[in-house]
Amino acid sequence: MVKFRIALAQINTTVGDFKGNTDKIVNAIKQARDIKANLVAFPELAICGYPPEDLILKPHFVKENLRQLNKISSTSRSISVVVGLVHQEKGQVYNAAAFLHHGRLVDVYHKILLPNYGVFDEKRYFQPGQHCPIFMIGDVIVGINICEDIWHSDGPHHWQARSGGAHLIINISASPYHEKKIAERERLLKTCSRENKVFTAYVNLVGGQDELVFDGGSMIFAPDGRLIARGNEFKEDFIVADLDIKVFSQSRRQSCSSSSVIPAKAGIRLKQIKLTSIQPPIKITVPKKLSLLEEIYNALVLGTRDYIRKNGFQKVVLGLSGGIDSALVAAIACDAIGSENVKALTMPSPYSSAETQRDSEIVALNLGIELIKIPITDIFQSYRYQLKDHFIGRPEDTAEENLQARVRGNFLMFFSNKLGWLVLTTGNKSEMSTGYCTLYGDMAGGFAVIKDVPKTLVYKLADFYNKKLILNSGSGKGQKVIPLSIFRRPPMAELRPNQKDQDSLPPYEILDPILDAYVEQDLGFSEIIKKGFDEKIVQKVISLVDSNEYKRRQAPPGVKITPKAFGKDRRMPITNKYRG
Amino acid sequence: MVKFRIALAQINTTVGDFKGNTDKIVNAIKQARDIKANLVAFPELAICGYPPEDLILKPHFVKENLRQLNKISSTSRSISVVVGLVHQEKGQVYNAAAFLHHGRLVDVYHKILLPNYGVFDEKRYFQPGQHCPIFMIGDVIVGINICEDIWHSDGPHHWQARSGGAHLIINISASPYHEKKIAERERLLKTCSRENKVFTAYVNLVGGQDELVFDGGSMIFAPDGRLIARGNEFKEDFIVADLDIKVFSQSRRQSCSSSSVIPAKAGIRLKQIKLTSIQPPIKITVPKKLSLLEEIYNALVLGTRDYIRKNGFQKVVLGLSGGIDSALVAAIACDAIGSENVKALTMPSPYSSAETQRDSEIVALNLGIELIKIPITDIFQSYRYQLKDHFIGRPEDTAEENLQARVRGNFLMFFSNKLGWLVLTTGNKSEMSTGYCTLYGDMAGGFAVIKDVPKTLVYKLADFYNKKLILNSGSGKGQKVIPLSIFRRPPMAELRPNQKDQDSLPPYEILDPILDAYVEQDLGFSEIIKKGFDEKIVQKVISLVDSNEYKRRQAPPGVKITPKAFGKDRRMPITNKYRG
Repeated sequence: MVKFRIALAQINTTVGDFKGNTDKIVNAIKQARDIKANLVAFPELAICGYPPEDLILKPHFVKENLRQLNKISSTSRSISVVVGLVHQEKGQVYNAAAFLHHGRLVDVYHKILLPNYGVFDEKRYFQPGQHCPIFMIGDVIVGINICEDIWHSDGPHHWQARSGGAHLIINISASPYHEKKIAERERLLKTCSRENKVFTAYVNLVGGQDELVFDGGSMIFAPDGRLIARGNEFKEDFIVADLDIKVFSQSRRQSCSSSSVIPAKAGIRLKQIKLTSIQPPIKITVPKKLSLLEEIYNALVLGTRDYIRKNGFQKVVLGLSGGIDSALVAAIACDAIGSENVKALTMPSPYSSAETQRDSEIVALNLGIELIKIPITDIFQSYRYQLKDHFIGRPEDTAEENLQARVRGNFLMFFSNKLGWLVLTTGNKSEMSTGYCTLYGDMAGGFAVIKDVPKTLVYKLADFYNKKLILNSGSGKGQKVIPLSIFRRPPMAELRPNQKDQDSLPPYEILDPILDAYVEQDLGFSEIIKKGFDEKIVQKVISLVDSNEYKRRQAPPGVKITPKAFGKDRRMPITNKYRG
Repeated sequence: MVKFRIALAQINTTVGDFKGNTDKIVNAIKQARDIKANLVAFPELAICGYPPEDLILKPHFVKENLRQLNKISSTSRSISVVVGLVHQEKGQVYNAAAFLHHGRLVDVYHKILLPNYGVFDEKRYFQPGQHCPIFMIGDVIVGINICEDIWHSDGPHHWQARSGGAHLIINISASPYHEKKIAERERLLKTCSRENKVFTAYVNLVGGQDELVFDGGSMIFAPDGRLIARGNEFKEDFIVADLDIKVFSQSRRQSCSSSSVIPAKAGIRLKQIKLTSIQPPIKITVPKKLSLLEEIYNALVLGTRDYIRKNGFQKVVLGLSGGIDSALVAAIACDAIGSENVKALTMPSPYSSAETQRDSEIVALNLGIELIKIPITDIFQSYRYQLKDHFIGRPEDTAEENLQARVRGNFLMFFSNKLGWLVLTTGNKSEMSTGYCTLYGDMAGGFAVIKDVPKTLVYKLADFYNKKLILNSGSGKGQKVIPLSIFRRPPMAELRPNQKDQDSLPPYEILDPILDAYVEQDLGFSEIIKKGFDEKIVQKVISLVDSNEYKRRQAPPGVKITPKAFGKDRRMPITNKYRG
């Protein structure tokens, strides 16, 4: 039995921020050395941030990231370090994990299984690796691999454990969040540990990057599938565990099946390192699991905060309509950057009801955010006056409705341009799917916080938010932050007299499951109606989704929380005559 | 010597338009049979249109495309047909070419080399093929492959010719246009024919699809590298040639080098078919080559026309400022869909000069398009009045400039929403690169015709257009369509008194080559200054390009004419701290 102390540095990197990322890495190495860890591991592409996308095509970007590796390497005395970076060898570029020890680069692992689906484009940038190095740290055999590698049961970990006799598999990841993925990952790692009878240490990136949120939640499993340690979700963490490793003899090494997904010539490569003795045991706390709504809410907060901060904004502004969407976005923004940094405009028109205006004031008051009132009536009238000679005898239609939304968009952008506030848009996924929103109007802004949240989930999250605050304040009574009147009022756009969403769309309880079937699951018309939905409604929804691709293409980014978000995740042509 | 009559159907397909595409294919098969061709070939993915992107992830889409194949197959009596489609076999999806003969599916070729760079994502959708079928039509051995396959000298054509003894290689393509690519393709095919001593028949898609334009220009080369036939560029065509094929003995088959890029197990597969005798010889005309400016101009016209028509629009509207960009876009639009379908708004502000207003009127008059005048002064004042209490004591800045552009955007969108006109935006690539444009203002619209055309090229194209019209009218005299005053006036945004582009940007003669180095060539700061550019200017340009990624992400699509356009071609993170 050998004691092996491992540290996982769950850090929040920023794409292209070499100085910031390297500083975090160097600090965590120091922290790990201070507690006498044998090894500290960092997330995938930690040096350059993930995903760097086409920055990788710039040779000087890759060079700079290699220069940082040298800096980091020089700080690794008396400890082993596994850190993600872009590696270059013989003119080929790899998604790599460097193994450093005592100031020296021991070896570099190249990711073998490159994801090229969903939001991932790794085959655009990287060559797949051909080798599975293992490292002997004293008597402990360690195999390292990267993210996707571990999602296939016959991936490199399988070879490292079975052929290489590894006791410990370290997987460094940048695995983006979507609902329920945390549980999925836990099942996967448990199985991996049990099937291969190895310790599995999984270190995941944390933080937001454009549309993606990395949730952290790093984990360590024992060979019997027991969870030994888990990092926090949605925040930086530093996880340490002492592993009691039974050092097997060479007979542990078995031959692998030949049906492996990794290339036939991928071989095991062994490097040997001295194990330093360790210090008194570390006490481990495993944070409690989050509920599904908590998970999603936290993802939205972190994604929003990081987009704002990493892009250099201090304050945000949004339009507060008195509806549920903008109330939830305002709440998320306050949790992300503090209510003192959140500004709201209320922009009533002749079609705004007294009730929604009052509710927008209550939300602002309850959240403690500044509310600026700018009526749009006069300007809307000026436009109509200016245009009247061109459209004599034509009835009002969506052109006038859109115009009101665009006047509001202009005001928000004016504040943004004048004061440097980032505009948050408030549209939800049901609207984005069906095009029930105005391009350059309510879609105008820098970040679309809830664009991947279906309307029915918006209500649940708002309710979760109300309850969360009650719990936190320790009282079950008193007014809710988002007033119940907003929950009870039917959703309405208020761009013409008494306009309700359900005049144009099926009820959200029907719409959202159809959208889930069509957008998320890629089911066709005939499969969806088999689920019992009305033919005409399904046809209408499909037609709305397909014909509004052009709008989504011009939408700001927002936090991905579902398995298939609009954006890199769903690449649909605009010009497309297929309906079905 | 055997006579072999080949037809290449250079058709303009539409993504997802199964009925329309199949009709075109069936008609061309009939046409080929009428002239007694032995074989007719169609472009890559002709049945479903190219690129279908994530439509391929819908199983019912793939099924529908296979159903169309059956329909087409039944019309192929007395002729061989090579047609592109999505193929499915054992649960795997392939980019495929079906070989049909006399009403029967003989075999299916699976594309081996899948492009996954630039605008291409083929590894997202397809498995690579493993076999190189050849077909004996009488004594003529034919090898077929798809697009990228032929761009690698040791690709399947090499095996089909060397090991399979093919006399004729047919490559079906959907190869998107960028400047100078036509000449590049010609060199490639010439070399391929000569090196492998084969006839090469290359059939390319024609037409616009979102940001891509396929230029057609199908070609047939003889084994000595001589061009036998060429199709028109930028329009549908039906190319026929009689090939005099020396039927070699089996000794022609040689062994291939083992360094091939195609999989080691890729084998040659032979199918035999009876050759029908052919009719009196076909006379071939080879259309004249286009000049570079003609090539680019035609690409812009076709890309614009197809976006408009394939998305179901009849008319377009644009803002005519009296500057060179909007004049060129108006000219392109007229060539695309006829001046009677092009509408222009002129929207003067207090900062608009009499000269630019007059020039916008002259352009409209010369092009024969309707010009609608809507001053923005009153509305701009209403906004300022509404906002004044919130910004007391603050000087005017870009917020007011952007506001004017947004008021104009609102008017354009109002006409669009009211009358169903598609808004064309008029920004060029120099502006898109540096963010010298207003989100939701001049960037508001459905299609950005010249977003990939640098400003210096805009002038050249406008000059080309003026000269083209003189040539066409047969007179060297008279007024030019785009008046010389527009060429002579320094570029100006007119959003504040006497505002010139060069107050904010380096002169375009300096800016454009820096942008080319940074955006197209991915050179870094130090490499660009080595070319002799001023350090401060280069630094500023890089910073402008990088910090305006968020604007480009919300821009409408436009025609790609350079090797690297913004969009699918250049996937940059918005959140990105790297500058260099």
